Amino acid sequence: MISCLKAAILAGGAGTRLYPLTAYVPKALIPIGNKYVIEYILEYLRANEINDIVMLVSNNEIDLLKNHIQDGSRFGVHVEYSTAERVGTAGALDAAKELLGQTFLVYYGDVLANINLKKMMQLHLTKKAVCTLAVSTAVPIEYGVARVDDDGRITYFEEKPVLKEYPVSMGIHIFERDVLSYCKPNTDIAQHVIPSLLRDGKRVYAYMTDKRHYDIGTFKSLEEVRQLVENNKLLF
Amino acid sequence: MISCLKAAILAGGAGTRLYPLTAYVPKALIPIGNKYVIEYILEYLRANEINDIVMLVSNNEIDLLKNHIQDGSRFGVHVEYSTAERVGTAGALDAAKELLGQTFLVYYGDVLANINLKKMMQLHLTKKAVCTLAVSTAVPIEYGVARVDDDGRITYFEEKPVLKEYPVSMGIHIFERDVLSYCKPNTDIAQHVIPSLLRDGKRVYAYMTDKRHYDIGTFKSLEEVRQLVENNKLLF
Amino acid sequence: MISCLKAAILAGGAGTRLYPLTAYVPKALIPIGNKYVIEYILEYLRANEINDIVMLVSNNEIDLLKNHIQDGSRFGVHVEYSTAERVGTAGALDAAKELLGQTFLVYYGDVLANINLKKMMQLHLTKKAVCTLAVSTAVPIEYGVARVDDDGRITYFEEKPVLKEYPVSMGIHIFERDVLSYCKPNTDIAQHVIPSLLRDGKRVYAYMTDKRHYDIGTFKSLEEVRQLVENNKLLF
Amino acid sequence: MISCLKAAILAGGAGTRLYPLTAYVPKALIPIGNKYVIEYILEYLRANEINDIVMLVSNNEIDLLKNHIQDGSRFGVHVEYSTAERVGTAGALDAAKELLGQTFLVYYGDVLANINLKKMMQLHLTKKAVCTLAVSTAVPIEYGVARVDDDGRITYFEEKPVLKEYPVSMGIHIFERDVLSYCKPNTDIAQHVIPSLLRDGKRVYAYMTDKRHYDIGTFKSLEEVRQLVENNKLLF
Repeated sequence: MISCLKAAILAGGAGTRLYPLTAYVPKALIPIGNKYVIEYILEYLRANEINDIVMLVSNNEIDLLKNHIQDGSRFGVHVEYSTAERVGTAGALDAAKELLGQTFLVYYGDVLANINLKKMMQLHLTKKAVCTLAVSTAVPIEYGVARVDDDGRITYFEEKPVLKEYPVSMGIHIFERDVLSYCKPNTDIAQHVIPSLLRDGKRVYAYMTDKRHYDIGTFKSLEEVRQLVENNKLLF
Repeated sequence: MISCLKAAILAGGAGTRLYPLTAYVPKALIPIGNKYVIEYILEYLRANEINDIVMLVSNNEIDLLKNHIQDGSRFGVHVEYSTAERVGTAGALDAAKELLGQTFLVYYGDVLANINLKKMMQLHLTKKAVCTLAVSTAVPIEYGVARVDDDGRITYFEEKPVLKEYPVSMGIHIFERDVLSYCKPNTDIAQHVIPSLLRDGKRVYAYMTDKRHYDIGTFKSLEEVRQLVENNKLLF
Repeated sequence: MISCLKAAILAGGAGTRLYPLTAYVPKALIPIGNKYVIEYILEYLRANEINDIVMLVSNNEIDLLKNHIQDGSRFGVHVEYSTAERVGTAGALDAAKELLGQTFLVYYGDVLANINLKKMMQLHLTKKAVCTLAVSTAVPIEYGVARVDDDGRITYFEEKPVLKEYPVSMGIHIFERDVLSYCKPNTDIAQHVIPSLLRDGKRVYAYMTDKRHYDIGTFKSLEEVRQLVENNKLLF
Repeated sequence: MISCLKAAILAGGAGTRLYPLTAYVPKALIPIGNKYVIEYILEYLRANEINDIVMLVSNNEIDLLKNHIQDGSRFGVHVEYSTAERVGTAGALDAAKELLGQTFLVYYGDVLANINLKKMMQLHLTKKAVCTLAVSTAVPIEYGVARVDDDGRITYFEEKPVLKEYPVSMGIHIFERDVLSYCKPNTDIAQHVIPSLLRDGKRVYAYMTDKRHYDIGTFKSLEEVRQLVENNKLLF
């Protein structure tokens, strides 16, 4: 069942937070340990029996990425490419719609995670969801936050807390094809598409996990992931 | 009244998130527009009638900073220095305790803000607070977050939302001298001192603002501040 | 004849001049256009009918490089690996001596060039050389230089001149096996081995070219090469 | 005599070789030890009794530099400013000609050196030179170079040699006012002006030294200077 689920990997993106590194290397091709980010993702998807991949890329990195991954056979998967000029994450899905089926996985190309995609797919089907988001209750936010009573007195303070009542989106979604009608050029999945689905009362579900994901989108998180990989504490 | 309030500026700190820039320039001496970060801070404090400054620095940057700021007269303030080797933010206060009075301001050296410190001091006095934190209800968190009902259905989703019930600490505090007894070497104000004060039932208050602060601790936020300054949209 | 010439590629090296980029990506795996530096080198060698490669690497990058290149079949060549901890370029050859034959090519892993290796090999054989260096009469030096007469008057001045009487070594050598006896741990080919060969009166010859090579060892030269590749002005 | 010599410091310049550092800090304001580059230069000039400075800057850095140096009194010198948009080093002199006298020193803003400017000025006067260049016989070039006999045999090879017959310009010149007539917008002193002076048979002399200068224009040389300063091996 899951084996016919195609994955759309969002592998474009300017990578501004990793500048100037990304002036030399696209985010998906940053090495961590003995592999490149995109290779971790392909292996993870294959381990979850997802072998059909559509790589959504911008013109900047298509040549290098294509040359590196080719048809994916070297990694045991089948890879197609869809190119579009920086049109937002939803715009990239729109541009690739011919290559996508009834149900598909959307995976952010700067995310390393280890959730069970089969179970996520089961939940998606059971709930008859139009859209299922993997969300984590283990991601700390970057600030010190307080709670304040009516008198202005602080009743709670925590530095970089995990706010469990606000689980964090991991950048891994399952979409029904209907969602594509919400995907317009220059729009963003998180900013525009999901809020619109909710506004329209569509069935949007959470696949909740207490594991965290890692995005390699900042130097700090990239360093963190590199440490974890180096110490064999993170096995993808 | 506020004019006798001394300010302790936390100007040390490794600046790892701005690496490799901070391998060449200490955070406090990064230029933005026609001034250095620390100069914005000194001007802001002076505009708020705080003229007595203790600069808490580590041995790495003391020589350059001292040479740049000297006794502060060039900036219309009076500056003393306290050096301690990377001992945490609370440890740095502990090391400087001889230079601090009964009530003092603690200001993080990578923060640019524009709150009214006189009003903050008034609140601190009115509430007979031991510790007052400036907190903002305008700082967006970095993730997309959801709320999920008992069935797992997502009822709310927002990308980079401001969570108003969790106001964010801006790195500007007023402390009574009692707080120093909570400041030990290798401890951190946000991680250790404030939670301990709360645990002991001390009077900790919030000076709440709907303006946001900017920390220049990451390339992204540094860039944001530079844009704001360049476009004259941020006047400190 | 040349087809049995093995090439030893010096692919280790700290890459300090490309720091901080090289903190994230080994020099050989920096992308330029649609390929990685090492891929340009392998293609160039294969185009010159050199199909047997020994990759000399340090422990830092061996895993990633091996995973990327594997046995080389993807690039139409056969690749073996020799690992040694930062022991100098000559030390790395010494460590790999079991894998090297009677005559072999030594190629610096941060060099892109397009000289005719067959002709170089012919020269090497004709001259019965122990060591042949490819040298270029087209590489400008980085300074403004003068010539001065006895009175101190400047008779010549040129900014970044090519000094044709001092042709520049391109980082491409052909060595007879005898040279290995000059290769000790922690010694350098250019600093120690070649001067020693000359001191001992060995037959060291120049394969002279008026084409220039490009090393990608500095940001400036990397940028230059990227521009050339982008504009199709440099075809390797 | 020398005390009426004005110095024109070339403090603009894109600093591309220090990118991305120079995206945040102009070259002249990079800190080394407890001082900024420009402060070393001002101190050095003052120690050589040159107290009148014209700072040639581009619009990008004028505000910050002016705010930092102001009229120079803090550094015991008198500083004026001349702004021109990236017009080349000679173009910048041309733009500043109203501020320059009969004889003046030209000093590159990314150079740290310790030659005796009085002696240089004496030579300039004794030789009745129109232009005197400080040149060093102690600067190694960046390559391995050979000498080759008619048979193609290498007779000399040295890695990063000092070529004493080609002394290197240190970026410190004394000019008579006549030279300004050779300075046009978008021309360069080293590339255009000095060769033209020679072509016209003007009296161009060398002030030769066996000390080397340091330019901080690349990460490698910046690091080298930082080490020297840290170890007190370089006293400017």
